[in-house]
Amino acid sequence: MEQIFTYDRIYSFTHAIFLAIGCSEKDATTATQTLLSADVRGIDSHGVARLSGYVRLWDAKRVNATPQIKVVYETPSTAVVDGDAGLGLVVAPFAMQVAIEKAKIAGTGWVSVKNSNHFGIAGYHAMMALQHDMIGMAMTNASALVAPTFSVERMLGTNPIAVAIPAKEQPPFVADMATTTAANGKLEILQRKNAEAPFGWVQDKEGNASADANILKKQGALLPLGSDREHGSHKGYALGSIVDIFSAVLSGASYGPWAPPFPAYVPMPENMPGVGLGHFFGAMRVDAFRPVDEFKQHMDNWITRFRNAKPAEGHDRVLIPGDPEREMESVRMKEGIPIVNSVVADLQELGNRFGIKL
Amino acid sequence: MEQIFTYDRIYSFTHAIFLAIGCSEKDATTATQTLLSADVRGIDSHGVARLSGYVRLWDAKRVNATPQIKVVYETPSTAVVDGDAGLGLVVAPFAMQVAIEKAKIAGTGWVSVKNSNHFGIAGYHAMMALQHDMIGMAMTNASALVAPTFSVERMLGTNPIAVAIPAKEQPPFVADMATTTAANGKLEILQRKNAEAPFGWVQDKEGNASADANILKKQGALLPLGSDREHGSHKGYALGSIVDIFSAVLSGASYGPWAPPFPAYVPMPENMPGVGLGHFFGAMRVDAFRPVDEFKQHMDNWITRFRNAKPAEGHDRVLIPGDPEREMESVRMKEGIPIVNSVVADLQELGNRFGIKL
Repeated sequence: MEQIFTYDRIYSFTHAIFLAIGCSEKDATTATQTLLSADVRGIDSHGVARLSGYVRLWDAKRVNATPQIKVVYETPSTAVVDGDAGLGLVVAPFAMQVAIEKAKIAGTGWVSVKNSNHFGIAGYHAMMALQHDMIGMAMTNASALVAPTFSVERMLGTNPIAVAIPAKEQPPFVADMATTTAANGKLEILQRKNAEAPFGWVQDKEGNASADANILKKQGALLPLGSDREHGSHKGYALGSIVDIFSAVLSGASYGPWAPPFPAYVPMPENMPGVGLGHFFGAMRVDAFRPVDEFKQHMDNWITRFRNAKPAEGHDRVLIPGDPEREMESVRMKEGIPIVNSVVADLQELGNRFGIKL
Repeated sequence: MEQIFTYDRIYSFTHAIFLAIGCSEKDATTATQTLLSADVRGIDSHGVARLSGYVRLWDAKRVNATPQIKVVYETPSTAVVDGDAGLGLVVAPFAMQVAIEKAKIAGTGWVSVKNSNHFGIAGYHAMMALQHDMIGMAMTNASALVAPTFSVERMLGTNPIAVAIPAKEQPPFVADMATTTAANGKLEILQRKNAEAPFGWVQDKEGNASADANILKKQGALLPLGSDREHGSHKGYALGSIVDIFSAVLSGASYGPWAPPFPAYVPMPENMPGVGLGHFFGAMRVDAFRPVDEFKQHMDNWITRFRNAKPAEGHDRVLIPGDPEREMESVRMKEGIPIVNSVVADLQELGNRFGIKL
């Protein structure tokens, strides 16, 4: 059902595809690194499996392979970036770097981005801050698939939030989460297996609880983190809304149900109130608050204490955000990256089109 | 089972109590306004019901009624505030004001606070930014009552996050949420009614699902937003952790299971790694990103569109974060604030001690 590829082999292929659609060498490298960070960290739904989707957006003239990405407005600690319809995989690292440069001088940097596209995994961008002894944050709005509490209409994307915090001897704390109960990629895995979804992940078009993993194709919706009102779905709805507003209303991107859809075959919404997809990035210099070494020692203490929290029966350990992805990364860089056959076939077809061998 | 009081009557009483424990006129006013904003907005667990709890902390010498609250470190967009063991009700507005002043010059302001105490409702502090055409944020760590995913140990508080965003004709967007499935105050309401809690709110000391609203007295724990791993509790755990780290590890307050407990009779944890409770505040000037009027028009559009999202059967409307609390405020300022008899008795006893009539 799947084949194993080395990172280098997928890297060469992906890089060649980005060059083939007209990206510069530099942008192709950035886009490839960003995209494949998902496969390496085990978030298969956001990695090379989406490569042909990005190319279809380029076919539809919704992705500009040679964007002039620009800071269009700024203050000492803020900036707005216009992505010029570039790949989010390239626009996002540019904007995160602006946030980092701002933080070097002002203590923190906050960048809202318009006119962009899907940016891969949020965690990758947040983690760019770590090497500068900064806390990194990244979020983005996305195609509307999520119904607010008490609604049956899809109004929000899965709108993820990532936060990366450096430690000393311990690995960094890296949270990267959709603001829904389950990310769409989890549903896709169930679809491939013909399996049911747990109740609380989705609802049908009337707003009833549903276990149908294909319900999004039948006008159903994903549910905000919390699943239902009694279990706090109004909080997941609020979190997804905050991501939407910071990413798109602050920058001038298109928000809420008007967010541009990722699948190129889905028509663009009418009367879009802004330009393209939006993102939001933050960088906070640790030593804008307290000495780096002191902070990192306390982070080590925090992480160690939480890792040693008493586990519930049936569990051997308590995880720190980022543990599963980091462990996956060390396995996959050694043993290779498994890709399901349907994605392999899709990539081969893409390769044939451009004369590039997988 | 309850009595109705006018705002003014509760205000005079509360103000007199704060003066009686030695607060300055100015601090008593700030503390009273902050505390009662909870009663006004319908978050009864965080308002005057806690007044005697604050006084017991003062009795225990854990609250300093005449603190020298100071900025102890700063950069253009950041500061660390030492609350000098003051009432969080006074320390938090001071620190939020520092964030606002930073934002006026640097575009944004971010303040981490140590050596503080319980600060009332997070939303009150976040909303201070609104009158300056800024987005406000507030969070705090709190007594450990929440078990991380896969754990039975109480490691985190209900660690709320509040975000307030201004609009034009529409009322502001105000999210104010515990990062748990249900706030502790919701459990307390069930305890008074002798009612069961919905599954997913709490677990027993072995980590089993429980409907016992009194389970926290039997070494049980509150659950992070998401309730269980399958429904995303690792996300609520991550959110609560981020609040803990921003509030306490960045500032030098005491974090995780070492956060000072609110009830004065609970002994302080041993080997505390920091000083007092921690908070974190943010203010972002809207016009550090785009013109205020343009932003507010889009917020009106955002709010109107979401309010008009198609409701699910059995619901007449979709709410915007902040709607229920604002509607409660307009009712209670007109019709008075209901206080349950047990709290009235507690306040009368407190009044008798200081010779103040309720």
